Amino acid sequence: MEKKFMRLAIDEALFGVRHKHGAPFGAVIAKNGKVIASEHNHVLKNNDPTAHAEIVVIRKAAKKLGTIDLSDCEIYSNCEPCPMCFSAIHWAKIKKIYFGAKIADAKKLGFGELEISNSKMKSLGKSKVKVVPGVMRKECLKPFKEFAKSGLDFY
Amino acid sequence: MEKKFMRLAIDEALFGVRHKHGAPFGAVIAKNGKVIASEHNHVLKNNDPTAHAEIVVIRKAAKKLGTIDLSDCEIYSNCEPCPMCFSAIHWAKIKKIYFGAKIADAKKLGFGELEISNSKMKSLGKSKVKVVPGVMRKECLKPFKEFAKSGLDFY
Repeated sequence: MEKKFMRLAIDEALFGVRHKHGAPFGAVIAKNGKVIASEHNHVLKNNDPTAHAEIVVIRKAAKKLGTIDLSDCEIYSNCEPCPMCFSAIHWAKIKKIYFGAKIADAKKLGFGELEISNSKMKSLGKSKVKVVPGVMRKECLKPFKEFAKSGLDFY
Repeated sequence: MEKKFMRLAIDEALFGVRHKHGAPFGAVIAKNGKVIASEHNHVLKNNDPTAHAEIVVIRKAAKKLGTIDLSDCEIYSNCEPCPMCFSAIHWAKIKKIYFGAKIADAKKLGFGELEISNSKMKSLGKSKVKVVPGVMRKECLKPFKEFAKSGLDFY
């Protein structure tokens, strides 16, 4: 685990909220200790309900690496990926997920989450992806606080 | 349920396989009895592991309607949406899913599915989306048979 990658994911989330691009979520894909791509939620900016941080960053990393197989990569998210994003990570064959805040935190804040944890998705779906929860949780919640004050709508 | 919409989803899936765009899946979004968008899997064509038929068609419909809220819409898929796509449908607030083949059929064919059914996702996640399985199942399996003969890789 590299703290600097999680810090970058948090910075992406803060950037997204401050520019009103969408919800307070950021994600970074790294390979061999280097950042391949970093992104944030673009749901409002792109008018695209699927443009969660993880989806956007997977698309960017696949384009950059020229392959749909990201099995050498790891992903850092300030929040536990929602079931859509967890499943996208599975499809991209990413080997490990690091996250800070939980889906339950996002739901509590006001988002319309399907409250199914990554560990539940992994066990039910028999996915090989490794999941590391609780990374820098306190810092990961900072973008949530900014979003709550931003006046942006929950969706 | 409108059979013509499912036929269009099947035709999309067949087109996608025949043009080597990706896996044998198609989807249609309809509103008030009219087609808003129809699409097929573009994972190989776009080199994008997230470009499942439902994700692509949701993005297209949101763009066309100018909103991330597709709560007046229904979606037709020749195969039960995978957990990524089910969750995308939830986020887009689509009210009803019609599908033919099952995730288990896609897994049996060779795809790396997270085998979590839509009814399981719905009950665990407390989603309001309605799910109508088994629509024109035999015809929905036709693109699967073509894919099996196509020489395209499973992913």
